[in-house]
Amino acid sequence: MTEPLRIGIAGLGTVGAGVVKIVRQKANLLAARAGRPVAITAVSARTRDKDRGVSLNDYTWEDDPVALARRDDIDVFVELMGGSDGPAKAATEAAIATGKDVVTANKAMLAHHGQALAEAAEDAGRVLRFEAAVAGGIPVVKALTEGLAGNDVTRVMGVMNGTCNYILTRMQSAGLPYEAVFDEANSLGFLEADPTLDVGGIDAGHKLALLASVAFGTRVDFGSVELEGIEQITIADIRHAADMGFRIKLLGVSQMTGRGLEQRMSPCLVPENSPLGQLEGGTNMCVLEGDMVEQVVLRGPGAGEGPTASAVMADVIDIARGTRLSTFGQSAATLSHARPAKAATPAPFYLRMALDDKPGALAKVATVLGEAGISIDRMRQYRHDDSTAPVLIVTHKTTRNALDSALAAMSRLDVVDGTPVALRIETV
Amino acid sequence: MTEPLRIGIAGLGTVGAGVVKIVRQKANLLAARAGRPVAITAVSARTRDKDRGVSLNDYTWEDDPVALARRDDIDVFVELMGGSDGPAKAATEAAIATGKDVVTANKAMLAHHGQALAEAAEDAGRVLRFEAAVAGGIPVVKALTEGLAGNDVTRVMGVMNGTCNYILTRMQSAGLPYEAVFDEANSLGFLEADPTLDVGGIDAGHKLALLASVAFGTRVDFGSVELEGIEQITIADIRHAADMGFRIKLLGVSQMTGRGLEQRMSPCLVPENSPLGQLEGGTNMCVLEGDMVEQVVLRGPGAGEGPTASAVMADVIDIARGTRLSTFGQSAATLSHARPAKAATPAPFYLRMALDDKPGALAKVATVLGEAGISIDRMRQYRHDDSTAPVLIVTHKTTRNALDSALAAMSRLDVVDGTPVALRIETV
Repeated sequence: MTEPLRIGIAGLGTVGAGVVKIVRQKANLLAARAGRPVAITAVSARTRDKDRGVSLNDYTWEDDPVALARRDDIDVFVELMGGSDGPAKAATEAAIATGKDVVTANKAMLAHHGQALAEAAEDAGRVLRFEAAVAGGIPVVKALTEGLAGNDVTRVMGVMNGTCNYILTRMQSAGLPYEAVFDEANSLGFLEADPTLDVGGIDAGHKLALLASVAFGTRVDFGSVELEGIEQITIADIRHAADMGFRIKLLGVSQMTGRGLEQRMSPCLVPENSPLGQLEGGTNMCVLEGDMVEQVVLRGPGAGEGPTASAVMADVIDIARGTRLSTFGQSAATLSHARPAKAATPAPFYLRMALDDKPGALAKVATVLGEAGISIDRMRQYRHDDSTAPVLIVTHKTTRNALDSALAAMSRLDVVDGTPVALRIETV
Repeated sequence: MTEPLRIGIAGLGTVGAGVVKIVRQKANLLAARAGRPVAITAVSARTRDKDRGVSLNDYTWEDDPVALARRDDIDVFVELMGGSDGPAKAATEAAIATGKDVVTANKAMLAHHGQALAEAAEDAGRVLRFEAAVAGGIPVVKALTEGLAGNDVTRVMGVMNGTCNYILTRMQSAGLPYEAVFDEANSLGFLEADPTLDVGGIDAGHKLALLASVAFGTRVDFGSVELEGIEQITIADIRHAADMGFRIKLLGVSQMTGRGLEQRMSPCLVPENSPLGQLEGGTNMCVLEGDMVEQVVLRGPGAGEGPTASAVMADVIDIARGTRLSTFGQSAATLSHARPAKAATPAPFYLRMALDDKPGALAKVATVLGEAGISIDRMRQYRHDDSTAPVLIVTHKTTRNALDSALAAMSRLDVVDGTPVALRIETV
């Protein structure tokens, strides 16, 4: 096969421009590696007249991404518009219906419609690939679906939202409160237009749902991801955690258990000397665990023009080479409906609460924990100047259900001020 | 394609037994992922009557691996015997000549004969794959040749001999001299029958030569790898390096420069707070740098039954899925003959020497360095009880050539006792 692979690109933001640059600047390299040239035929974006740092004169312009997807002079439709529905989904469906392979970086679309789109592609004999949708430049979808294909995957974990990791590590290094670092990240342009996509864990939750599907051969089930953002994390939490040898990360964890499939995206404590604990700034990390390979850790840039375009091109080059892979690692028709786990795997928890400075206050809290069957590993009460004392408790392993009962009972005590914060301590 | 992929396995040591276990125990998983069953047809090893923890009764036994490779009831020949020549090479050649795909974990064979074997496979329309030959369970060949295929790779680095990393980190943690930890590793069975394969850097050098080929599209050139083992590293070096914020690792580095291809496997200093610096024990790490993706780091087990069998199965499943990839990431016929770089990229160096305790001794050494155009970043002279003083120097960036001239001049001084030790400080 030596005729060019012809691609059409819809969406010419940072990542789209990066893909155009790679195809233009590395023609010989791509041809050598793919065994055939890779060529751009047509492009589409919302605004035509905008300096993207690269010439688009050689390509047919389409105002409508669906029209681009339907063109008969493209082999691969590269969807880089984003958005779970709307033009991205319409164009992807049009591409598949008209016999195109699709490469997308769109985690929201796949988190919501991945199963239907994968089935449509499979029925049409087309491939739909999404390496760029998860953890940017890290080839983690490939690592899981191909590199670890001989494993029963036991757990996948990931720090997959660089903005959240930036905020948490910056709070620690600069000693600034959450709000100040949030504003700083916002002014640096790190946050999505709707910041809750980042700090609420939704963006990272989309990625976790995709990883869980390829890890466990299950249908993407974003609706069952337990989501918890980082908004409640205080600088005090970060310092207390550090005192005890931990770091706080917005960590995604998915594992298949006898109780069903767990998918959690939440702030967790991890040991400071673990690879996850040592991850600083906007870098992403995925931890893949399988029964044969034990543990493989991948670390790299989770966003940005070059890294994300690199991941898009990995899928494009696979297709150019003739590699035909299922979207989620096995035929979409064979993916199972995983039962969501009603109860998460037991873990130790970090609890932070404000106790009234009264005799017997701590005893009441300890009694509540004991009655819920939760034993205390470590407890610290910090010096304080006002009428409530900050108290930290690290529990031994317990279930989230037992913990929630205890938290509810605590909120009924007359000595606990406000709602206690509970963060899982993940074993890594 | 739903008929089984039939494999024949030659070599039933740890890894071979692991592959048999995966195929037997995960039949449904493999069939789901590959879209067809994977079945073992025939096996071969030096000893038939040996408990390998798994039954071989279902498979045809061949005493001769070449006869196994030639059988017409296998599609893929899995070579797990080892050795650069002899039966492994003969059987691999026989497999290709009789129309089989080949999966091998044999780094020595590919380091010496990779180009010829890849060309033979290509001419026969067969694939030859080797994920398990480099860094055990880490899917690094796949990450480079596929995941980062849209990049001009700028540098690859790796800690790829777990035994050496075990020795170096154990020396540090236990405060034991090299010889004691070497004996310990030997008694634990960590060392090859010929230990210089490990501690001399040869095994890791084989792996680096393979990584360099896939990174830069060049023919494997193991003969040009600069090899330096860890035998000369003392506990004092490790402590001095730690004092200055460094760790010592047997580090492979390959980069393409204007002066040609650099391939070095040598003990280097790396910052203690870098992913490479933090790597402990037998774990492997590969650092991949590309112009688009910046830096991707992969960490995982570099040896052992499960991890290595996992890597073998990744290649087998690729073949079962119909993925047909070139051995070294592009057609073997198009791989270039890289000119070996005569001079390595400049770097800072760590120097350790013993100076006679005489007035003016240090001045003489400093003068020699100055005359070679090498400036000193840091210098420490340690307290001492005998007639020579241990002196450490960290230079600013310099070329190895300038350094070698300076070292030669130092050895002619009457105040330097023995030969100074020089270790590169790699920027990571």
